[in-house]
Amino acid sequence: MNNIAIIKVEAINIIKKYLLNLQNRLCHVLEQEDGKARFIEDKWEHTEGGGGLTRIMTDGAVIEKSGVNFSHVYGRALPQAATAKRPELANSPFQALGVSSVTHPYNPYVPTSHMNVRFVMVEKADGSTHWWFGGGFDLTPYYGFDEDCKHWHAMAKEACNPFGLDVYPRFKKWCDDYFYLKHRNEQRGIGGLFYDDLNEWGFERSFAFMQSVGNSFIKAYQPIVAQRKQHVFGEREKSFQHYRRGRYVEYNLLYDRGTLFGLQSNGRTESILMSLPPVVTWKYHWQPESGSPEETLYKVFLVPRDW
Amino acid sequence: MNNIAIIKVEAINIIKKYLLNLQNRLCHVLEQEDGKARFIEDKWEHTEGGGGLTRIMTDGAVIEKSGVNFSHVYGRALPQAATAKRPELANSPFQALGVSSVTHPYNPYVPTSHMNVRFVMVEKADGSTHWWFGGGFDLTPYYGFDEDCKHWHAMAKEACNPFGLDVYPRFKKWCDDYFYLKHRNEQRGIGGLFYDDLNEWGFERSFAFMQSVGNSFIKAYQPIVAQRKQHVFGEREKSFQHYRRGRYVEYNLLYDRGTLFGLQSNGRTESILMSLPPVVTWKYHWQPESGSPEETLYKVFLVPRDW
Repeated sequence: MNNIAIIKVEAINIIKKYLLNLQNRLCHVLEQEDGKARFIEDKWEHTEGGGGLTRIMTDGAVIEKSGVNFSHVYGRALPQAATAKRPELANSPFQALGVSSVTHPYNPYVPTSHMNVRFVMVEKADGSTHWWFGGGFDLTPYYGFDEDCKHWHAMAKEACNPFGLDVYPRFKKWCDDYFYLKHRNEQRGIGGLFYDDLNEWGFERSFAFMQSVGNSFIKAYQPIVAQRKQHVFGEREKSFQHYRRGRYVEYNLLYDRGTLFGLQSNGRTESILMSLPPVVTWKYHWQPESGSPEETLYKVFLVPRDW
Repeated sequence: MNNIAIIKVEAINIIKKYLLNLQNRLCHVLEQEDGKARFIEDKWEHTEGGGGLTRIMTDGAVIEKSGVNFSHVYGRALPQAATAKRPELANSPFQALGVSSVTHPYNPYVPTSHMNVRFVMVEKADGSTHWWFGGGFDLTPYYGFDEDCKHWHAMAKEACNPFGLDVYPRFKKWCDDYFYLKHRNEQRGIGGLFYDDLNEWGFERSFAFMQSVGNSFIKAYQPIVAQRKQHVFGEREKSFQHYRRGRYVEYNLLYDRGTLFGLQSNGRTESILMSLPPVVTWKYHWQPESGSPEETLYKVFLVPRDW
């Protein structure tokens, strides 16, 4: 291998090491908060090379379903979901590394969370290499609490500030724009951070940012789970949670780039769709009662705001 | 109006009359089979002109959720879902008329059914008009019965045969190809008929075919509902039905042209997504027991076959 090739392999290796460590820490924290269930593991191979390690926890005391997925896959050609805005990279071979995590708690007072950090490297037709980082985290409450939203966004801001004071506002807005259900004219949740195509900072700084986002996610989510997991709830709250989870399904199957990227690149379907909630309902033209906490979710929390 | 314009308006009116009558008959038959619940009605208007009449039945004795939707909408530009294979029609104003019906029975031994018949008319940039018919019906059982599949396909064949003996095999195969979940390598169900872009037969014959398909759907589905609705079932069958309904959601949000056409053309979201099942579960990497009736569904029924 030439020097460039060695540098590439080393870069991939240090990212991989961080991601596997993040996966471990995240699973550990979620098991701690749950106190009952444990993650099971599935190792799998990708049809075009590489593979992954999927970890799933179900039917816990606190967590109804959580998936924390590590993958490092190779592909012969970047799928459409990744080239729509990068047409010059169509049909280029690539590798993609990442950790994705979605947690659906049992208690409707504990919000659903999503986190993803990823690195993509593409071999262009002219022999050169193009790479970028992407990721972020966002929170989807069923019942909103101001202090949770403030804490969540404070952690998002803390993750960004070492990289420039313009970073949080930029990636916070990107998140609001991205996790938006156009067909409902609704936000998916209260947002957080989203970024993609990040390479203008150079490799080291971008990789440091990936770590900052991954680490901050744990600090953002764990206290909210701990704070809300004992909240008393009944049929009404559970039923609203089941209904609202339908929006999560709609978002992931209609819009989510990671989901579509995975399915289009012949990814491991069960690992990609681990993000789908365990129990979901759809009710025709359901509307929250006026003045109810369910209406408050729509009016106060599912609106882009400065937290 | 000139003669051409008058002919167009008359064509639309006779199609509309047929479709509203089909909607009535279909709702009547489903109410009869249910014996308890009734369809409720919602009239709505489309943002770009036209509108529709949505009918929904929920929580019946036999039918957990059924939607029978009539719509006649105008649009400024055909959406991407309709122009991917007709690029010459991109950005053309259009009108679309149709009836769509999806029925999710409560009893897992009664299959889910889908029927759609539609007519699209596009005003091309050069002032000329292009039109086509499309539609079909397909059946999604949870537990398979040979005689139901034979009856279903016999009705499909009967609908087609007056239009040529090659029609059923062609539209049956199109249905198998279309209602296919690529990411699962699975058929959605046991198929039926699917056709699109039908105008080479001329207007009268194509419209007669629309009627044949609509009418045959009632003859195909009603006897199966009547035959299976008393079948005894328990938790196990209900749980499998909830799980399998997840595939219906995946199909409709990832692939279904009607759904994507509707959402992309700013359609009425609640009417488009009435097709989504009332209660759905996702279980990570669930596999049927070897030798079970659930495995038989996959191995024997979810495989394209000559019925």
